[in-house]
Amino acid sequence: MTAPTLRPGGRSARVQESIHTAVRELLEEQDRASVTVPQIAARAGVTPSTIYRRWGDLSALLADVALARMRPETESANTGSLLGDVRAWADQYLDEMSSAPGRNMLRDVQSSLKPSYCATIIGGQLQVILDRYPDQPKPGVDRLINMVAAPIVFRILFSEAPLESEELHRLIEIALGQ
Amino acid sequence: MTAPTLRPGGRSARVQESIHTAVRELLEEQDRASVTVPQIAARAGVTPSTIYRRWGDLSALLADVALARMRPETESANTGSLLGDVRAWADQYLDEMSSAPGRNMLRDVQSSLKPSYCATIIGGQLQVILDRYPDQPKPGVDRLINMVAAPIVFRILFSEAPLESEELHRLIEIALGQ
Repeated sequence: MTAPTLRPGGRSARVQESIHTAVRELLEEQDRASVTVPQIAARAGVTPSTIYRRWGDLSALLADVALARMRPETESANTGSLLGDVRAWADQYLDEMSSAPGRNMLRDVQSSLKPSYCATIIGGQLQVILDRYPDQPKPGVDRLINMVAAPIVFRILFSEAPLESEELHRLIEIALGQ
Repeated sequence: MTAPTLRPGGRSARVQESIHTAVRELLEEQDRASVTVPQIAARAGVTPSTIYRRWGDLSALLADVALARMRPETESANTGSLLGDVRAWADQYLDEMSSAPGRNMLRDVQSSLKPSYCATIIGGQLQVILDRYPDQPKPGVDRLINMVAAPIVFRILFSEAPLESEELHRLIEIALGQ
């Protein structure tokens, strides 16, 4: 029998985590355009070829890190009401995405092979909230994505200014039928 | 007095138009990644340096062409009702943007210096529709952008499939309060 700590993939997962951490640190320290694969490799304690073998190129690695960052480590706030929970989620999402790292993340995810993970991840987070209120009339998760997440992202990418908080809250109320 | 046909900028505008036309034709004939500045110059009957002087590089030229394509030459359909007009606009926008050239256009516009023109252009088109019905209660143009254009674009960029027509029509009805 093999001890559980020796499971295959353990080293591989640790290598991936150290490379992701190196990317996140470097992105905080310096301009994004100046980050290079050899730099990331040095910081993570691996050879550049480890990175090239696994991700192909820098933009794929940046996209992978961006996708990983979109999965928050903690569940979104449980305020006791559906309206409150969706608001808390949306306020945080608006904040994160309109920051400089958030904007870059959206661009990286788009140039990744799987930009559609974005809707999947958002949908998963909103579904957790909807499932907290089984006995309440409520919209489907796709309606929430269309009326709450979509305008946040659209305004960041294609508008002068981010979505205003007041309009975001109004859109949430309309989506929840309140 | 100078004859009106000799107005300054005439030659410059014709050069720009022939370059835009060359780009549009080449994008229809061949893969986007294979289009080059010398090729565009040859087709348009100008030197490559004319293009570099004016746009700086290929991606700026592609973005400029993409933005120009977003301004339709004709006004959107006048169906006689606000709901019908917004539907006609949205159906056409969904169609255009989910095509391969439409997707590329969205990406080009984003990498342009002025991605926010996108919301400005869309807002202008929707405002024309709203202004046709001065005596009717109706949402502001920003609400329409948020509830109709944003989910179309978001689903194209970040989801498995484009927005479904049925959901689009439902969103329009909600936005118009019907």
